[in-house]
Amino acid sequence: MFESAQLGHKVDKVVYKEQEPLLREALLAVQYQLKEQANFPVVILLGGVPTAGKAETANLLLEWLDPRLIESHAFGVKSDEELARPAMWRFWRALPPKGKIALMFGGWYAGPMWDYLQEAYSGQFEHEVERIARFEKMLADEGVLLLKFWLHLPKDELKKRIKKLEADDRTAWRVTEQDRQFLKYYDQIMKAQLAMVMRSNLADAPWRVIEGSDANYRSLTVGKQVEEAIKHHLERGTQMQKRVEAAPLLPSIDGLRLLDKLELGSNLSKAEYTKKLEDLQGRLNLLTRHPKFKQMSVTLVFEGMDAAGKGGSIRRITAALDARQYRVIPIAAPTEEERAQPYLWRFWRHVPQHGRMTIFDRSWYGRVLVERVEGFAARADWMRAYNEINDFEAELDAANSIVLKFWLAISKDEQLKRFEEREKIEFKRFKITDEDWRNRDKWDEYIVAASDMIDRTNTLSAPWHMIGANNKYQARISILEKLCEALESRLQRKDKKR
Amino acid sequence: MFESAQLGHKVDKVVYKEQEPLLREALLAVQYQLKEQANFPVVILLGGVPTAGKAETANLLLEWLDPRLIESHAFGVKSDEELARPAMWRFWRALPPKGKIALMFGGWYAGPMWDYLQEAYSGQFEHEVERIARFEKMLADEGVLLLKFWLHLPKDELKKRIKKLEADDRTAWRVTEQDRQFLKYYDQIMKAQLAMVMRSNLADAPWRVIEGSDANYRSLTVGKQVEEAIKHHLERGTQMQKRVEAAPLLPSIDGLRLLDKLELGSNLSKAEYTKKLEDLQGRLNLLTRHPKFKQMSVTLVFEGMDAAGKGGSIRRITAALDARQYRVIPIAAPTEEERAQPYLWRFWRHVPQHGRMTIFDRSWYGRVLVERVEGFAARADWMRAYNEINDFEAELDAANSIVLKFWLAISKDEQLKRFEEREKIEFKRFKITDEDWRNRDKWDEYIVAASDMIDRTNTLSAPWHMIGANNKYQARISILEKLCEALESRLQRKDKKR
Repeated sequence: MFESAQLGHKVDKVVYKEQEPLLREALLAVQYQLKEQANFPVVILLGGVPTAGKAETANLLLEWLDPRLIESHAFGVKSDEELARPAMWRFWRALPPKGKIALMFGGWYAGPMWDYLQEAYSGQFEHEVERIARFEKMLADEGVLLLKFWLHLPKDELKKRIKKLEADDRTAWRVTEQDRQFLKYYDQIMKAQLAMVMRSNLADAPWRVIEGSDANYRSLTVGKQVEEAIKHHLERGTQMQKRVEAAPLLPSIDGLRLLDKLELGSNLSKAEYTKKLEDLQGRLNLLTRHPKFKQMSVTLVFEGMDAAGKGGSIRRITAALDARQYRVIPIAAPTEEERAQPYLWRFWRHVPQHGRMTIFDRSWYGRVLVERVEGFAARADWMRAYNEINDFEAELDAANSIVLKFWLAISKDEQLKRFEEREKIEFKRFKITDEDWRNRDKWDEYIVAASDMIDRTNTLSAPWHMIGANNKYQARISILEKLCEALESRLQRKDKKR
Repeated sequence: MFESAQLGHKVDKVVYKEQEPLLREALLAVQYQLKEQANFPVVILLGGVPTAGKAETANLLLEWLDPRLIESHAFGVKSDEELARPAMWRFWRALPPKGKIALMFGGWYAGPMWDYLQEAYSGQFEHEVERIARFEKMLADEGVLLLKFWLHLPKDELKKRIKKLEADDRTAWRVTEQDRQFLKYYDQIMKAQLAMVMRSNLADAPWRVIEGSDANYRSLTVGKQVEEAIKHHLERGTQMQKRVEAAPLLPSIDGLRLLDKLELGSNLSKAEYTKKLEDLQGRLNLLTRHPKFKQMSVTLVFEGMDAAGKGGSIRRITAALDARQYRVIPIAAPTEEERAQPYLWRFWRHVPQHGRMTIFDRSWYGRVLVERVEGFAARADWMRAYNEINDFEAELDAANSIVLKFWLAISKDEQLKRFEEREKIEFKRFKITDEDWRNRDKWDEYIVAASDMIDRTNTLSAPWHMIGANNKYQARISILEKLCEALESRLQRKDKKR
């Protein structure tokens, strides 16, 4: 992969002077068309050997392009904000919306490479690269145009350049300790880089290895590839291709679904409830004040039919917490800003940092519930979402965030009772809309979708809890119990994962 | 994932009697349509808890369907043939052609599960599951309809069934030691199974977990799912979907390509050549008679422009070998049988067993050379082939097969000289066809494709050697040297991989 970038590629000064203005013009043209169409975002990853021209190339692109439509991101030492969240959070923050370009230095490859150098070869590195390949496939499936550049220099050339810079007092400061380490471990790094590049050389997001020695060649090549790729994407964006759609999942032939077997009711009295609630809230409060809670976070997901009691259950949790410690995120239709991003983006922005709890009132599961039932997402798209969601939650778990998911289950009759009650009581009327009635008509489709969802995303690290919620009291108590148990078990765990 | 299959699903006897004939009719109808259309093959993987009805279900399907169009495969202890080849070879052998159905017991999941039980949890298991997910994605991309069933029983039910069988002398023999082990390690196995299912729950090939307790429910469900899935595939097979095509790879802007820099000629004299050739052939012969050669194999790939000297080089290798030890596989257009399979199938069938050498005169690289240049494969398809080929060769390497790939490079002038010579000499005239002249017109496109190919498939475990071949003598000597060196290095290696 790197041999083609050691051939002594060169572009003559005269040719460069002639080509550069043409390229700039072409780049601006596609950039404005990109903004106009606003159908997809562009992510440019820029990696490479030190002194091979990463910074120069970035500067040129920023100079050539309209700076209002491109942002650059360097990812150095992690901030406190970033350390307290999953590793990928910093990259999700930096994703550009449709119609814009983001330029990222190194990007998500820097982390695994660093791990590799730290602990020699281990399965962890391979695991990380697989994770990245899946992440990039997801971006591509979501329509992101991902351009991955590696600016290359052979070892001798790097050595020569570092020596030359060091020899002159005016440039010696440019050589960092990291650059020297890169030279020292050049062979090992390139071996790992090769493994990484080969595995992540996706058809949808191939690597583009460019020789960095000659500035003219490098600059024109990167510029032209960016221009051509965007142009291609703009033109082919709406092109249809032959592609077999996955076969449907079928509901069980006896009509029995996962959620049908759940005991929905119970006869917990208000008096018992009040007593238990108080105990549990006290227990929860103590747990969130445990010193080790500062090294972990909690992500709660509430899903269920309309009027299942999600809001009430959430309030019984938050009543036990310090207001600075939690956030409740109600999920409705995405905003314009959110629609310009991959669908998981709007949830990543709310991922809790250590010491905090985020409670999602509806969530990313909308992808496989409402979007599936209403046909907002194509089958191929919601079918891949199960795996993408599992990957997302695995990242949360790896960052020591407890993920608990609650499905609040009520009977269709109970829903009717609650709807009618809401319509009767003045201060509850705002809670009931025509849409709620329309959703109710699709009750069975929602039950099928929810059963599939629980089946396909009920992982060990992020389990679903199905809560019978015809009796609100019992539902709230069960949820608080599950939460307290999960916290206790994690707080007792000796070694933190990862 | 397994909860939905512990609900006590049942189908009443009366309903079954009523539905079964309808289902049989429908199954036969789709089976004949499948044969008629012959656009894709169907693979049914059948796994599950012992006594959950795997064998019964298979028997039923074989009874319901036309046996001439379905084959069943059980994979027990590996044969000598299979042990001496990569782990996936036995499954490639069992793949059905377009229009037919294969029923596989356990399939490629049994191996990793066994490894998992042997050595508790390790990175190897995860690695295997990733490999499987990529393999299945490739099958799906190649149009294979893959139906994965897991017939489930809860632990209690399994225990009850084993006890019941054991209690009666007439049925006790049915309980195998493996069944008892499954029960003993039920929890661990199901934990691993969950991890496996979750990771391989592809949008294109989702798992279908079916409760096995009630035979009527189980049989009707599997039958209906098979029928619906095939029907869906038949109907949607030619449907177009919106899908963005990957941006093209661009040739380098200065026109300099990897292969341009290669020294093509040399002035090795015939006398020197004869001396060196003899030495090298002797060395090679000795190496292939090394006792450790019986635990390894060699896979050689020859690619290059027409008249580059592939055949001559191959003959100089085989001259040093025992005729029982090697096979030369010339690759031309695929046969009808081969066109009915995923494109790698026709190479898998020739994978050498231990102690043998297979020499491919042209190879799977046709996918990214002639199929790319001539437009026989869509860009999305040849772009994904780089990774698929790397995975294939990694399997060979893991099975201790040395993979060496030679690109024989000649200049365009040298090719012309050789073409003209072939046309002049009577006994060489058969070697030159109109197609050779047509290919020559696309010289530059082939050079670009070959450069990309070498870039994207030059892995550490299966390296490319670019051989300057204007001087035939030098080319043959270089190739023999590379081969001997690779053999010596592998024979000296202490621990066999995997």
